[in-house]
Amino acid sequence: MTNDLVLAFSGGLDTTFCAAWLAHEKGYRVHAVTVDTGGFSPAERQRIEARARQAGVASFTLIDGTGHLYGRILRHLIAGNVLKNGTYPLSVSAERITQAVLIAEHARSMGATAIAHGSTGAGNDQVRFDMLFAIALPGVEVITPIRDLRLSREAEIAWLDGHGIHIDATKAAYSINQGIWGTSVGGRETLTSDTPLPEPAWPTPLTREGTATHVLTFTEGELTGLDGEPFTDRVAAIRALQEKLAGWGIGRDIHVGDTIIGIKGRVGFEAPAPLVIIKAHHALEKHVLTKWQLFWKDQLAQWYGNWLHEGQYFDPVMRDIEAFFARSQRTVSGDVIVSVAPHRFHIDGIRSPHDLMAAQEGAYGEMNNGWTGDDVKGFARIFGNQVGTWHKVHARPVEQP
Amino acid sequence: MTNDLVLAFSGGLDTTFCAAWLAHEKGYRVHAVTVDTGGFSPAERQRIEARARQAGVASFTLIDGTGHLYGRILRHLIAGNVLKNGTYPLSVSAERITQAVLIAEHARSMGATAIAHGSTGAGNDQVRFDMLFAIALPGVEVITPIRDLRLSREAEIAWLDGHGIHIDATKAAYSINQGIWGTSVGGRETLTSDTPLPEPAWPTPLTREGTATHVLTFTEGELTGLDGEPFTDRVAAIRALQEKLAGWGIGRDIHVGDTIIGIKGRVGFEAPAPLVIIKAHHALEKHVLTKWQLFWKDQLAQWYGNWLHEGQYFDPVMRDIEAFFARSQRTVSGDVIVSVAPHRFHIDGIRSPHDLMAAQEGAYGEMNNGWTGDDVKGFARIFGNQVGTWHKVHARPVEQP
Amino acid sequence: MTNDLVLAFSGGLDTTFCAAWLAHEKGYRVHAVTVDTGGFSPAERQRIEARARQAGVASFTLIDGTGHLYGRILRHLIAGNVLKNGTYPLSVSAERITQAVLIAEHARSMGATAIAHGSTGAGNDQVRFDMLFAIALPGVEVITPIRDLRLSREAEIAWLDGHGIHIDATKAAYSINQGIWGTSVGGRETLTSDTPLPEPAWPTPLTREGTATHVLTFTEGELTGLDGEPFTDRVAAIRALQEKLAGWGIGRDIHVGDTIIGIKGRVGFEAPAPLVIIKAHHALEKHVLTKWQLFWKDQLAQWYGNWLHEGQYFDPVMRDIEAFFARSQRTVSGDVIVSVAPHRFHIDGIRSPHDLMAAQEGAYGEMNNGWTGDDVKGFARIFGNQVGTWHKVHARPVEQP
Amino acid sequence: MTNDLVLAFSGGLDTTFCAAWLAHEKGYRVHAVTVDTGGFSPAERQRIEARARQAGVASFTLIDGTGHLYGRILRHLIAGNVLKNGTYPLSVSAERITQAVLIAEHARSMGATAIAHGSTGAGNDQVRFDMLFAIALPGVEVITPIRDLRLSREAEIAWLDGHGIHIDATKAAYSINQGIWGTSVGGRETLTSDTPLPEPAWPTPLTREGTATHVLTFTEGELTGLDGEPFTDRVAAIRALQEKLAGWGIGRDIHVGDTIIGIKGRVGFEAPAPLVIIKAHHALEKHVLTKWQLFWKDQLAQWYGNWLHEGQYFDPVMRDIEAFFARSQRTVSGDVIVSVAPHRFHIDGIRSPHDLMAAQEGAYGEMNNGWTGDDVKGFARIFGNQVGTWHKVHARPVEQP
Repeated sequence: MTNDLVLAFSGGLDTTFCAAWLAHEKGYRVHAVTVDTGGFSPAERQRIEARARQAGVASFTLIDGTGHLYGRILRHLIAGNVLKNGTYPLSVSAERITQAVLIAEHARSMGATAIAHGSTGAGNDQVRFDMLFAIALPGVEVITPIRDLRLSREAEIAWLDGHGIHIDATKAAYSINQGIWGTSVGGRETLTSDTPLPEPAWPTPLTREGTATHVLTFTEGELTGLDGEPFTDRVAAIRALQEKLAGWGIGRDIHVGDTIIGIKGRVGFEAPAPLVIIKAHHALEKHVLTKWQLFWKDQLAQWYGNWLHEGQYFDPVMRDIEAFFARSQRTVSGDVIVSVAPHRFHIDGIRSPHDLMAAQEGAYGEMNNGWTGDDVKGFARIFGNQVGTWHKVHARPVEQP
Repeated sequence: MTNDLVLAFSGGLDTTFCAAWLAHEKGYRVHAVTVDTGGFSPAERQRIEARARQAGVASFTLIDGTGHLYGRILRHLIAGNVLKNGTYPLSVSAERITQAVLIAEHARSMGATAIAHGSTGAGNDQVRFDMLFAIALPGVEVITPIRDLRLSREAEIAWLDGHGIHIDATKAAYSINQGIWGTSVGGRETLTSDTPLPEPAWPTPLTREGTATHVLTFTEGELTGLDGEPFTDRVAAIRALQEKLAGWGIGRDIHVGDTIIGIKGRVGFEAPAPLVIIKAHHALEKHVLTKWQLFWKDQLAQWYGNWLHEGQYFDPVMRDIEAFFARSQRTVSGDVIVSVAPHRFHIDGIRSPHDLMAAQEGAYGEMNNGWTGDDVKGFARIFGNQVGTWHKVHARPVEQP
Repeated sequence: MTNDLVLAFSGGLDTTFCAAWLAHEKGYRVHAVTVDTGGFSPAERQRIEARARQAGVASFTLIDGTGHLYGRILRHLIAGNVLKNGTYPLSVSAERITQAVLIAEHARSMGATAIAHGSTGAGNDQVRFDMLFAIALPGVEVITPIRDLRLSREAEIAWLDGHGIHIDATKAAYSINQGIWGTSVGGRETLTSDTPLPEPAWPTPLTREGTATHVLTFTEGELTGLDGEPFTDRVAAIRALQEKLAGWGIGRDIHVGDTIIGIKGRVGFEAPAPLVIIKAHHALEKHVLTKWQLFWKDQLAQWYGNWLHEGQYFDPVMRDIEAFFARSQRTVSGDVIVSVAPHRFHIDGIRSPHDLMAAQEGAYGEMNNGWTGDDVKGFARIFGNQVGTWHKVHARPVEQP
Repeated sequence: MTNDLVLAFSGGLDTTFCAAWLAHEKGYRVHAVTVDTGGFSPAERQRIEARARQAGVASFTLIDGTGHLYGRILRHLIAGNVLKNGTYPLSVSAERITQAVLIAEHARSMGATAIAHGSTGAGNDQVRFDMLFAIALPGVEVITPIRDLRLSREAEIAWLDGHGIHIDATKAAYSINQGIWGTSVGGRETLTSDTPLPEPAWPTPLTREGTATHVLTFTEGELTGLDGEPFTDRVAAIRALQEKLAGWGIGRDIHVGDTIIGIKGRVGFEAPAPLVIIKAHHALEKHVLTKWQLFWKDQLAQWYGNWLHEGQYFDPVMRDIEAFFARSQRTVSGDVIVSVAPHRFHIDGIRSPHDLMAAQEGAYGEMNNGWTGDDVKGFARIFGNQVGTWHKVHARPVEQP
């Protein structure tokens, strides 16, 4: 039996402490694994690796998780137009799952006997990592030093200093988490119920003026083109859109939601590309899907998003819902025209060979060849039949409440 | 048997023609009834009555429908945060129901033997009026001259001229419908799938600059205060908010939706107060309702809004859902802070004695006294129990798709 | 332009009249098409063809529709455990759709210019045929002589007699419809609300005594074996089960449901194999699916069954839901033991390699190795967290209603 | 600070041990409270009290919980036709909630500083008691000796013997739980997946022959009469029905379900009155409710039943759903005729002034005066409009899969 332990490593104070502490105090060979979900610059990647080395890890691995994140999660969130509580694209929730799954895969492939994460006992992440690790790696011990030791930042820094690991651990004003599906911003104001984030707290300052128009091309529900340029790599398409939208100050909001552990949380986020993609995709769907496709997609997606948020990615019902989504997207192809201006964007319209509105006989409100007024008379008579019977039976006056 | 007929009268060309034609050709004593859902100025009311008199009606009645509209419909739409297809507050759909119901009540109270509306054979309104009239007035004939005769505007004008009724019937560039729950704008661009409405098409021009902040006070889900001023009359509260929001160019969008008769329709709308009220109300709910209250309210509200849109106001299931909504609103009281700027608004935060976020032990992401990290460990183990068993049974690798 | 007309032909009085009348009065070359959904004996098939020839059709075609019925409809109804209003396996609804679709295909393949069905104006079938024909054959006229002429049975018989077509058209006491998914029985008692069908009205008399036990084998949700005998042909499997269950008097009930046209209807049915298959399949699912798979399957299936019943088979949302069902069935394999006795059956149990109950650590109510009592303590604390906060905020006594 | 502890007392080995152990080892003044949910004979009540005295309790209180059980839970389960997984009336789940709530109320009214229950660490009950006690009594310690000590039955008996408490603790072959909403039977066969309970395991032997017919009268969804005898006390009505149904061997089945802690469980139950009431109530509803009332009641009830089963009685969403149910029941009044025979019952029909089937114009399948065949033609054309457009756009052949 080896003593190899895989550690989900972010390069922050907590996981640096974990790396060193698990090696020194518990005698593990610590293998730090960092999954990049699209938020790291080359410099940051180097900084993370250097930090891991400083903490004395036996190995450091950086995994590009963007392909997994998009292919296994984001495309379904787009298909479902998932905005939690009508607002939040689940930026962090989605990333954590990709991170947990890919780190667990790494641990299995190397035959690790233990796996660790640096979550505290206060948030959602502990549940996601605990649960996904336990399911993916039955029999492998899950270790959580930060949660178990309940050390203060100062105590962690002191312990590291005492072991010759001197790191700069100034606490930032806001806790920032960045990836291809958006950036979250927590701290100060988000701990209150009544205060918005101030302008300087937002990651990307407003630098643009005037207006611009972009055309997003969707193929079976996926973003495959931008302003005429095709993309086979969907992650690249999202990144390209993100770049074009930066500086407009759009896609910002505050999410108020229920955490897995039953408390309410509030967090700011800046997610221009996700918001524009979802609103554009939804607009296209309104033109190409039938009424009941739209209805059932919404009913399922709301729940799907929440179950994903709660870390239940491995529940087979998620695959069933994804099969529904995938089938529904077969006709969701076409262009969506989006105009942007400082702090706002607008869906101008769509063009699609699948557009039911364009195809139907006669525009809304205009007479047409598909049916007659008499047909609608008959329809209204039958459509109101049962409720009419109900009111006859109950001999109610017009108003029954 | 009398020959009194009640006509749903709007004062436009179609209903003016109906009034005169039903009197001259069919020999009815025509009683024109107009229901004001909040969109008429005193001058417009006078103009409508004058038009009715010109058409030779036996009586003209103007009913203030705003109380019915709010009390029977809008407060439920607010409780449900109903935005059809995520966008449209159902401005016109809601009005039509109030109009149909109140006109039917009028017809019954006066013992009319027939009832008429001026809908064409192309839209939603014919179904709503047909169905609600038939249910509310069993045995009373429903007459629809415009749909039945299929006359052009020119033919209607010619007929009226021929009968000495000379009216100005210039067709406006856009068809506008205004009420307390918003103004709809249809025509030209909305007949396409890909073109937005141009700035001049919007009813209320942008005249404001800078930013402003307003505080909306809700009591059990209803708007009862604005910037510190209490309102016992909820319609007055909506009107007051509407006045404060005018000139900011907010609450505008284009709705793409499924009509009752199965075709897709696109319509612009400007509804600042409804949009701000619904988003503010929803924000408050996110703080005061439990996770599953939010879930089920959404599942029901989406369907409720559509069934209302389809004119099925009299289905008793609507009362059942309203009972659910009413019960859920008992704790939806508090202030919501909203900031506005040209073309956009933002929910800044809320204050409520029912705020679960403020009450909970420890903020999200901070340690607390309500439970321990060990509790969450246990929770995660149990929460992932069944899915873990599933994966053990199927001996799947980490990724099962 | 040809004058070929395809007629949905059942061999009864109404469609015999249609065949002759359409030829004589309208000058069509009438092509009678009968789709066998599993209810015809060889003698009946001959009788139907003879009747068609007697009516003077240009051609008669008998299509075996059982493969379509099973593959396109029944396997989804089984996957969804669909029993309308908790009772009825949708025997007739399913058949009508297969019939309409296959007859429309026949009409298209032969280039018919018109298509006819013999429905009256009183039931569900007219809507199904009208709608499916119109969608499948745009531009082809749909003709419905019985509905349009409103002839009495006597008048039809007289007309036929007058044209040299002498048929035995004694009206049976009950209207019977038989297919592989069950037999419906309507008439007399079913026109009341309070009277059950008498024993002699049921198609298959009780002839068995004692008890018997059968084992149904399911593979990915489909019946593939019976008492150890494998079936690759699923229709044959259903027929074999039907044969074994005949004589036990099981699978009988009265369905009370909402028709497409808004009235309530009551109909008896005898469907031993469908009932046993669905209950057995559901029992297996309870062992192999997760809690939320069961939940969402139910929510979707209830609506799916109704939308099918209403003839909306061509709505693409049906394909989306079927994709969900198909994905969910991957682990629904195993044996189900069913015992039968006169007028009743019972699901005794299941055996499956996917059985989650067999796999889990420790039986329900017994201590186990998968988790500890302390884990559950933590779970209960977190699971009750939000609702506990709610009650603290509202300082309610124990009982809040 | 007192040292009064309230113990949820059943009179079995576990809670007897708890009573004595908490007094002797922990020094509490133990107040045993037993809530009768309808399953105790006078002799059993005496036996339970004697056992409590023998264990040395400071007080013993027997609370009649049937009123609470019916008024707060069962009437909603009836309104919702709740049968978990299509089978089980939630007999035990419902009882446990009443017990927990009433015991918590007792603890509060006497100012107890601790509350205890005797659940093991293996089942659902621990979660219900833990959670409901914690919510109802914030700040009061919850003590669970059996779960914490993990003693064997033998060890408990030995400890009791050693403290002079000699009890007969022969373990029964099956674990039985009885109340007004049914009797559950667990053990031996229910620990397997494939074996039914043998005849002798069922609590009430079959003693009746032939057939009998009963008439259940419902008033606004509640059972208020039986065979012509009115009941104002609803619990008495259930008991009276139970008595009439005893000896027929009906209402027996095996429930396979998901426990709160994520494992599958299998349990037998015998619940003649609950099954007959729910099926009769549902039959009545099919006649008096509209299609969408039936639909939404089902969607809500399935979830409601499960959330109740999981002990989440205090979630305010439960009150919201109950408000929906209550509103829906206003017209659910009438008689239901039920025939019974050995091992089976059948709903023969209903009579109600609210019966929509009786009221409608023309029976199903018969021509009528309410509408014409032409109306239905129009209806079918409009009803199939959107899907027809979809198929035109996609130029699909008849079959699109």
